[in-house]
Amino acid sequence: MNADNVRDCFNDSQSSVIERLLSFDPKVSPSIDSWTRPEGGGGKSCAYANGNFLEKGGINFSDVQGASLPPTALSNRSDLSGSPFRAMGVSIVFHPINPHVPTAHANIRFFSTKNKEREDVWWFGGGFDLTPYYPILSDVIYWHQQAKDCCDKYDQKFYNKFKTQCDEYFYLPHREETRGVGGIFFDDLVIGDFSTTLNFCKDVLKVFTESYFSISEKRKGLPFTKSQKQFQNYRRGRYVEFNLVYDRGTHFGLQSNGRTESILMSMPPRADWAYDWKPRKGSREDDLYQNYLKPIDWLNLS
Amino acid sequence: MNADNVRDCFNDSQSSVIERLLSFDPKVSPSIDSWTRPEGGGGKSCAYANGNFLEKGGINFSDVQGASLPPTALSNRSDLSGSPFRAMGVSIVFHPINPHVPTAHANIRFFSTKNKEREDVWWFGGGFDLTPYYPILSDVIYWHQQAKDCCDKYDQKFYNKFKTQCDEYFYLPHREETRGVGGIFFDDLVIGDFSTTLNFCKDVLKVFTESYFSISEKRKGLPFTKSQKQFQNYRRGRYVEFNLVYDRGTHFGLQSNGRTESILMSMPPRADWAYDWKPRKGSREDDLYQNYLKPIDWLNLS
Repeated sequence: MNADNVRDCFNDSQSSVIERLLSFDPKVSPSIDSWTRPEGGGGKSCAYANGNFLEKGGINFSDVQGASLPPTALSNRSDLSGSPFRAMGVSIVFHPINPHVPTAHANIRFFSTKNKEREDVWWFGGGFDLTPYYPILSDVIYWHQQAKDCCDKYDQKFYNKFKTQCDEYFYLPHREETRGVGGIFFDDLVIGDFSTTLNFCKDVLKVFTESYFSISEKRKGLPFTKSQKQFQNYRRGRYVEFNLVYDRGTHFGLQSNGRTESILMSMPPRADWAYDWKPRKGSREDDLYQNYLKPIDWLNLS
Repeated sequence: MNADNVRDCFNDSQSSVIERLLSFDPKVSPSIDSWTRPEGGGGKSCAYANGNFLEKGGINFSDVQGASLPPTALSNRSDLSGSPFRAMGVSIVFHPINPHVPTAHANIRFFSTKNKEREDVWWFGGGFDLTPYYPILSDVIYWHQQAKDCCDKYDQKFYNKFKTQCDEYFYLPHREETRGVGGIFFDDLVIGDFSTTLNFCKDVLKVFTESYFSISEKRKGLPFTKSQKQFQNYRRGRYVEFNLVYDRGTHFGLQSNGRTESILMSMPPRADWAYDWKPRKGSREDDLYQNYLKPIDWLNLS
């Protein structure tokens, strides 16, 4: 295990995604901040807004050390809570202008710490997921097929496992809805050796970027109405609810005294709430609720 | 202790506040829902939107029973967690259209449960707080003076104690800001006997309503610009952050399988996020950050 390799790889991944965004949406306005943190470490936050395509988004890298691993860093290794740690991650969120283009999120992360016997312990986590407003079934199937192809190169069991974990993780119990149509989500991951696991994470970000801009290229020109934009802003409220109430990454950042503006980069530019709003039966908005916001086996539709 | 007295008193308080709102803003559009809950109990949610004064708000009553008191119900009585309970409350949030008028929130609540010795245990909680966008100092002082006058009738020590608790509770650590200019906040409250405590809670809602509409009457006609409205929407993002990340009432509702639309009635109609936005030095927006969003002894300004 070589943590500096992770840093270099994550930096390269961040640069590649930035390059892809800027070639897709050259008008987008960047805010680039390199920052350090008193407790150790730092990062590079790249926020974007007001493009022709992107309304708001970010492509962030962070590499932080701390004296005591917060409980939110761990899904099932509570024995390590409180140990000194190093955590690195790349996080990406795209909130496009056009409601026919989905919002997308990806993350890869690396943790290293020591166990009670003072041995090195490390693992990777991450994944990606898609949050459409006016979903197109073929796009959702394509998204999941890309995810499966990426996983299958490493282990035939990964896609089903990570797809299920994604549905479980990106779920809002108080709404009885998934956040979107999912993708893959993994944690506590070690695939054979260190470099294989690192390569998998690199591939995950690459496949995310290719798939997202491929869908966006197809849908970015679709005309939309004011009421479709309103629906997007209303649904962005769910995105806010998920990230602030449930997301472990957000809570980890806030608990570990992270850089607030980088953590909350994931917030949409605008979110609306309307009391007890419901879609009209049979409308395209209703189609989202009825046919997409639940765990569905997209690659084996009956 | 008679829980039905609490119910009647809370119902009357809800009706009085509704009456006051409707006389202040007759154009406001109501959505009234009486609801029941499979686990026991129910409530009456009164949501309002699109008035001449009010953009969005709610005046809710709930009376719910449960088999197991969630930990968020208790600030320092963890021994009671898991006991059967009855919880009642009135919650009020007003998000006005005009950014020169503050957002306001009030709540009174009652819990009853049994301790390990199967004896009745009950207490009240609640308070009110003010969240201005373009604060006017005399309004803030008036708000706190009204709170103090209300408290002093019961105990000369209450105002200082409850004011401090309000500043501590409505604080966003990740922003290093208070939510607004505060007010009073109390929990685990028993003042002498049951009916005195109940009367105090009733007075709290009355003083809240009088003070809020008195400030609103003065400021509702002030002209505002598009950029002032944008600033209000941006600051409403902080309101969302507080309620979803920290607010115990929201978490209690979500954890106890409450009615989501009633719990999230507190959300503003719209909230905006902009990466790393900062007010211009010396501007009125900067005045809010510099001179209001911290714990200040409003009744003893030097």
